[in-house]
Amino acid sequence: MRLWGTEEEPSRDPAFERLNASLPFDRRLYPQDIRGSIAWARALARAGLLSPEELEQIVAGLEAVRAELEAGAFVFAPTDEDIHTAVERRLTERIGPVAGKLHTGRSRNDQVATDLRLFLMEAWPAVEEGLRALEEALLAQAEAHLDLIMPGYTHLQRAQPLRYAQWCLAHAWAFERDRERLRQAYPRLATLPLGSGALAGTPFPIDREALARELGFVAVAPNSLDAVSDRDFVAEFLFLAAMIGLHLSRLAEDLILFASAEFGFVALDPAYTTGSSLMPQKRNPDALELARAKAGRLIGHLTGFLIVLKGLPSGYHKDLQEDKEPVFDAVDTLQALLAVLPGLIRTMRPRPDRMRAALEEAMLATELADYLVRRGVPFRQAHRAVSALVAEAARRGVPLSALPLSVYRQHHPAFDADILQVLDPTAAVEWRSAVGGTARPAVQAQIQALRERLAR
Amino acid sequence: MRLWGTEEEPSRDPAFERLNASLPFDRRLYPQDIRGSIAWARALARAGLLSPEELEQIVAGLEAVRAELEAGAFVFAPTDEDIHTAVERRLTERIGPVAGKLHTGRSRNDQVATDLRLFLMEAWPAVEEGLRALEEALLAQAEAHLDLIMPGYTHLQRAQPLRYAQWCLAHAWAFERDRERLRQAYPRLATLPLGSGALAGTPFPIDREALARELGFVAVAPNSLDAVSDRDFVAEFLFLAAMIGLHLSRLAEDLILFASAEFGFVALDPAYTTGSSLMPQKRNPDALELARAKAGRLIGHLTGFLIVLKGLPSGYHKDLQEDKEPVFDAVDTLQALLAVLPGLIRTMRPRPDRMRAALEEAMLATELADYLVRRGVPFRQAHRAVSALVAEAARRGVPLSALPLSVYRQHHPAFDADILQVLDPTAAVEWRSAVGGTARPAVQAQIQALRERLAR
Amino acid sequence: MRLWGTEEEPSRDPAFERLNASLPFDRRLYPQDIRGSIAWARALARAGLLSPEELEQIVAGLEAVRAELEAGAFVFAPTDEDIHTAVERRLTERIGPVAGKLHTGRSRNDQVATDLRLFLMEAWPAVEEGLRALEEALLAQAEAHLDLIMPGYTHLQRAQPLRYAQWCLAHAWAFERDRERLRQAYPRLATLPLGSGALAGTPFPIDREALARELGFVAVAPNSLDAVSDRDFVAEFLFLAAMIGLHLSRLAEDLILFASAEFGFVALDPAYTTGSSLMPQKRNPDALELARAKAGRLIGHLTGFLIVLKGLPSGYHKDLQEDKEPVFDAVDTLQALLAVLPGLIRTMRPRPDRMRAALEEAMLATELADYLVRRGVPFRQAHRAVSALVAEAARRGVPLSALPLSVYRQHHPAFDADILQVLDPTAAVEWRSAVGGTARPAVQAQIQALRERLAR
Amino acid sequence: MRLWGTEEEPSRDPAFERLNASLPFDRRLYPQDIRGSIAWARALARAGLLSPEELEQIVAGLEAVRAELEAGAFVFAPTDEDIHTAVERRLTERIGPVAGKLHTGRSRNDQVATDLRLFLMEAWPAVEEGLRALEEALLAQAEAHLDLIMPGYTHLQRAQPLRYAQWCLAHAWAFERDRERLRQAYPRLATLPLGSGALAGTPFPIDREALARELGFVAVAPNSLDAVSDRDFVAEFLFLAAMIGLHLSRLAEDLILFASAEFGFVALDPAYTTGSSLMPQKRNPDALELARAKAGRLIGHLTGFLIVLKGLPSGYHKDLQEDKEPVFDAVDTLQALLAVLPGLIRTMRPRPDRMRAALEEAMLATELADYLVRRGVPFRQAHRAVSALVAEAARRGVPLSALPLSVYRQHHPAFDADILQVLDPTAAVEWRSAVGGTARPAVQAQIQALRERLAR
Repeated sequence: MRLWGTEEEPSRDPAFERLNASLPFDRRLYPQDIRGSIAWARALARAGLLSPEELEQIVAGLEAVRAELEAGAFVFAPTDEDIHTAVERRLTERIGPVAGKLHTGRSRNDQVATDLRLFLMEAWPAVEEGLRALEEALLAQAEAHLDLIMPGYTHLQRAQPLRYAQWCLAHAWAFERDRERLRQAYPRLATLPLGSGALAGTPFPIDREALARELGFVAVAPNSLDAVSDRDFVAEFLFLAAMIGLHLSRLAEDLILFASAEFGFVALDPAYTTGSSLMPQKRNPDALELARAKAGRLIGHLTGFLIVLKGLPSGYHKDLQEDKEPVFDAVDTLQALLAVLPGLIRTMRPRPDRMRAALEEAMLATELADYLVRRGVPFRQAHRAVSALVAEAARRGVPLSALPLSVYRQHHPAFDADILQVLDPTAAVEWRSAVGGTARPAVQAQIQALRERLAR
Repeated sequence: MRLWGTEEEPSRDPAFERLNASLPFDRRLYPQDIRGSIAWARALARAGLLSPEELEQIVAGLEAVRAELEAGAFVFAPTDEDIHTAVERRLTERIGPVAGKLHTGRSRNDQVATDLRLFLMEAWPAVEEGLRALEEALLAQAEAHLDLIMPGYTHLQRAQPLRYAQWCLAHAWAFERDRERLRQAYPRLATLPLGSGALAGTPFPIDREALARELGFVAVAPNSLDAVSDRDFVAEFLFLAAMIGLHLSRLAEDLILFASAEFGFVALDPAYTTGSSLMPQKRNPDALELARAKAGRLIGHLTGFLIVLKGLPSGYHKDLQEDKEPVFDAVDTLQALLAVLPGLIRTMRPRPDRMRAALEEAMLATELADYLVRRGVPFRQAHRAVSALVAEAARRGVPLSALPLSVYRQHHPAFDADILQVLDPTAAVEWRSAVGGTARPAVQAQIQALRERLAR
Repeated sequence: MRLWGTEEEPSRDPAFERLNASLPFDRRLYPQDIRGSIAWARALARAGLLSPEELEQIVAGLEAVRAELEAGAFVFAPTDEDIHTAVERRLTERIGPVAGKLHTGRSRNDQVATDLRLFLMEAWPAVEEGLRALEEALLAQAEAHLDLIMPGYTHLQRAQPLRYAQWCLAHAWAFERDRERLRQAYPRLATLPLGSGALAGTPFPIDREALARELGFVAVAPNSLDAVSDRDFVAEFLFLAAMIGLHLSRLAEDLILFASAEFGFVALDPAYTTGSSLMPQKRNPDALELARAKAGRLIGHLTGFLIVLKGLPSGYHKDLQEDKEPVFDAVDTLQALLAVLPGLIRTMRPRPDRMRAALEEAMLATELADYLVRRGVPFRQAHRAVSALVAEAARRGVPLSALPLSVYRQHHPAFDADILQVLDPTAAVEWRSAVGGTARPAVQAQIQALRERLAR
Repeated sequence: MRLWGTEEEPSRDPAFERLNASLPFDRRLYPQDIRGSIAWARALARAGLLSPEELEQIVAGLEAVRAELEAGAFVFAPTDEDIHTAVERRLTERIGPVAGKLHTGRSRNDQVATDLRLFLMEAWPAVEEGLRALEEALLAQAEAHLDLIMPGYTHLQRAQPLRYAQWCLAHAWAFERDRERLRQAYPRLATLPLGSGALAGTPFPIDREALARELGFVAVAPNSLDAVSDRDFVAEFLFLAAMIGLHLSRLAEDLILFASAEFGFVALDPAYTTGSSLMPQKRNPDALELARAKAGRLIGHLTGFLIVLKGLPSGYHKDLQEDKEPVFDAVDTLQALLAVLPGLIRTMRPRPDRMRAALEEAMLATELADYLVRRGVPFRQAHRAVSALVAEAARRGVPLSALPLSVYRQHHPAFDADILQVLDPTAAVEWRSAVGGTARPAVQAQIQALRERLAR
């Protein structure tokens, strides 16, 4: 049975039918499609276009169709070109001609945009929860190892001592920004297109605000043409997904390095690596490598879909059918990653011995310069004095701490007997107590601030 | 004079010096760099690291350097590898060794991130104003031609009559979403990295909140390592720019079509086209073509920069130097486009005759089906009846309105003498009076709603 | 049964198992995997590592496994994490411990790269054939309507008369470039990684040239580390796919315009559009819209995969597992599009009446200038004279051809009585007889040149 | 002076003039524009449209204009909207009305496409040479350290011993593929559009083959409409640039790791790093970080430009003006990188001590399994036996080589007294002597093969 055409409908090239069919992927939208149709039937009834009995029939029929779909008992017909057609065809088979009233005043254009928005509205909390779990895991690491000091890097060169907790929190704050972006984008997503018809609005007195409330939307699309043309919500979601992917890729890269034999700063739990029984020392960080790689896939979806929209005239175009697959894959990818990373983070073990071994004294030369600054020496002058000391130590082939005080004084008279206290990673870390720094109280304040955000 | 090194600094390959130098593009940041340095000097003074006299000297010196730069009198030295080095080198030349106190407790890592954020904070209002002007221009068109009816399209096929104002507003709402996104992203942008040092925080008691206030930031970066690693603000801006570019490309595509000989729905003002004196009928819509094309450039910048960030470990890396050029070009591109489009929209003239000529009766067949629905006929049944009528009219080679009432009645008894009133574009438009529809009151409500948003 | 591990293998987080599993998509590679394994077994036998009996057992076993897979009778086990594991597990079940000899001297790293290359080597001819069919369809249109003249456009403004055949051939040449690129890339694709081991080469005396010949490869990867790291062949294929997609999007855009009511230059066969029984004049060009949109998807795959590779160290990384899904989807997308477009082109009908109606005289003003040039007038001077004539005609409100010869002569004395012959689209077209031009013989020469290329 | 218009040309919005102007970037094309114009003048002369004297005047005039431009003495006028206009305007000033004959039979559409192709044809050899220099540098490293053994990695985990030369060559082969792609793309690039007019061909009897030869093109564009619409050569160049960028990013990533304190496998020459006089151990690998990052910029250009082309109708559109900036920047970026990387590679010093220290015995367990295989044990069975041995060694807390032979024999009777010879990195490497392997003769064969390619 064809819902839209007549017997005279010309036969299509089967290859075109295959190209055109969206059922293979949009069948996933059936829960949203049926929810939307039930709400639409209620709106029609409120507008006097369905009698209470008709409404009841339609709602019961749709629920029965949903049950068939949930049970895997629904049989798709070759003419079901998309999920909307399939559901309405089956509804007609079950309840007869009254089903023909359901599509009153709406079109597939507003219907499909509504379904996809509903899908994302339902996916949103899962993504948000995944991010929260990841932040919690990073926070737990930070709290459990608050006084652990590791080398901090710039240019992948050892630069300054850093609390391990500071490293954990640096990543957590990035995910917290992602959560904020998700929160802000939600009201734009939860804006109802239904009731916009094909492009010009619905010709029946539908109460769209009530319809929005019933479906959980927080606003009504203000312009019917925009409502069926607009896919900002898809682009924006794909961007948010790409940003999450990026943040995961950076966290993953850090950990792939830290888990290597060469760095050795963390041990990943075997539950998150693949091993080789021949080389038990080799724990391949597959989960992290996938986390790193999937940023590519997510950015690819974003780019690909922005291209679909580029230069598209207003109004509905079949091009927009390309919105679903990247959304589904991005949601699945995020959920797969966010199901793994929190556990991986929670169970990994930092290796204090390896961190300590990597904290070379050479990382503390700036501390000497800051020491002079505290005694009133201009920073650039202090810098030059310490450079000369460093060169002197290199010439002698000894560490800085092995140079006698007299040598220090030769390079700058402001050096005093307390300089050796400066050549200590713990001291270096505790000096950095301004907001955001790596000193203990500053890190504790950060932890509290992030906890408060997560509690909101 | 080398600020950072000593005489023993090994000589670099000149090709590497050229690759490495960022001065050719980052010199544009000098106003931000000097503003940031002045604020930093004040913060050092508040922390007791500069005396009032030293502060005065440094601030006066920096202002003099700024004046040189503004006047184009600043002479860059071959050793000025970036704008920060150039400014400090010149400051030292002007005020002597006290200049060496300015860099106390900060690093280029937090300095450069601060400069670029300041640059974008200053660019933000211009972009926002451009969008507002564009929305105003679209609103003005909508209001000036409130009752003008044009064909609405789906699949680039004439579908249903639409108010021209509805088309104008559809685009305006898209730009309004862009404005909203800009507003929401601003606080994340205006988060201060300065005071984070190279990665671990500053070792001096800097009041970062006061520093933020002085520079117009609304928050302080909560984690020093994140502060120097984070370029979310760049990615997010480039995404917002890409979205604006996309919206412009869709508006442009509509107008390129509408301005063609074939559509002829609008006449562009000659101030925005290039002509040919040989073919005066030919007005090339160059401005619109560029608006369409530059979405590519903007999406390219977004993609390119996301790639830079992908898989980058935490901490500062030279890779991040790639953040500036796309930001500068995206800002310039948006400003160039937003300087043109509002005027182009404001001055274009719709052509009612061409719109009217394109409103074929065939676009009104759905009105007949809705007519039956209002008489209680299920939509699908009404649809079939009208399909048969349309086929009948085609067989007879006459328009629908030329079929006698008796033929209508053969296809459905609910047809009555008032059916011809339905075959009218104005009637079709006015039926669509639900929120967001193309009926007069619905469009007026939209205009008012958008005006209120713009007035905020 | 676990092939790689031992009983002590630690239990993995099930979420990680799901993230890690590639079987859901790489099962599609089973024909290539089994072909590759059979060839490998033969290579091992040639190297003396398998006896003839062992070889026979393994080959027979692999063929039986393939038969199971082809018949849909293969039962995957929960421990089958990828198709390679699944095949070997099943082979072991069927033929016992001798199956354990198959993996001698190879690794999954060289195996999986070989499989994916084989897959693309098999997909290549289908893509090439699709392009050829499309070129043939465009050629057929060109030949069937050799003397049909249509308006040529620049800036979507009517510019100069053009043979419809010239338009058809313009697109055909673009696809011919795609075919050429495919041909050139093939030898790089058909370079054998097998025999490279995990990264350092195989420790057994495998004759890789013979192995390559047996599998249809044209070369042997020259470096084992490169062989397992290199995914240029994927990137290059995705680029070729993106280019084909781009060319299809441009062809589609032209035809969406030409099939609109406003242009009306071609009628698409109903077999390739979706219709509305209510609005029979409306033939939605869905196939073309999808062809336009899918360029986005294809470029997205390219971008996404380039990102995966960016900054990846040498050697195998799990990141590379992301190579398969974009390849599969790009192949499927190209095949779906190339199954439809040739038929769509072959069956579309140009509409000479609409083309003729759009050939305004105003498009011929440059012919007047060229007329003067042929009489020795410098082009810029001729241009000015004709500009003035055009302005004169506009002032009088008449077409150029209605101006008397005396007026022409006032503007330039070189005008003569034969000028009206110039104001004719056919004449304009035939003047352009230099190579590549739109004159009849030039177009015929093009057709022949393209035919020869296709015959190669 | 306006070349194209008349006095009545309406005034344009200055903001539009700025948006539209391409002179700020296309002035770079002046050498190509003038070369193309001289060749065009000669073609006009051959076609009888210029007398020998006129030709001489025009050629001399163009050469004088070029000299002005080269000397920086050319004064651009506000009406010079692009380089073509500027050159012709100046030519007219210098030689008078005869300059007006130069534009006979061509248009800016074929002219600009010709200029950009010429630009790239000139840039091609420099890119090719840069790649060759890089391959030479890698080859030189390979040859200088032919017997140096380092750990080979998969998943960034130590996997198997590898010749350092094999690592060098793995990268060299990737660049060799880039060179091959450049060579293959060249004939498509060097296809002449000139003589295609605005879109329909030139109306004068131009000998395009002769024109092509004169300008160094190897073919003539076969279709005038395609010739002005086609930007495949830009897309293809940007793809080649992106691939080179990717390969550089992977090489850079390897070296950033190898140059870290943790790996320490290579020491970069100070000429290619930036240092800190305070932390002399810290040598920031800026050049490598930029090489890694610029892949993003290059992929961004590719993506951005593919987007410009997506859905663009045939014929010239102003959108195509967006082709120049990405081409210029990609050429500059490649040249900047390829000016640095060969020197960096040539001067870096591998550190055998660090490599040796990283070659743990645990990397050799597969050698034991292969040992058994050589004695006829099926690989999977051998694998299990060695797994058990490895576990046994771990239980005893000793390396494999410290287990007595009796223990080996308990796990498999095929073990013999010669097993210790297997637990040696050199032996492991030399076993891999099949084509492409890391054994000495295989690597020497590779070096010779690559040398031969480079000598072609």
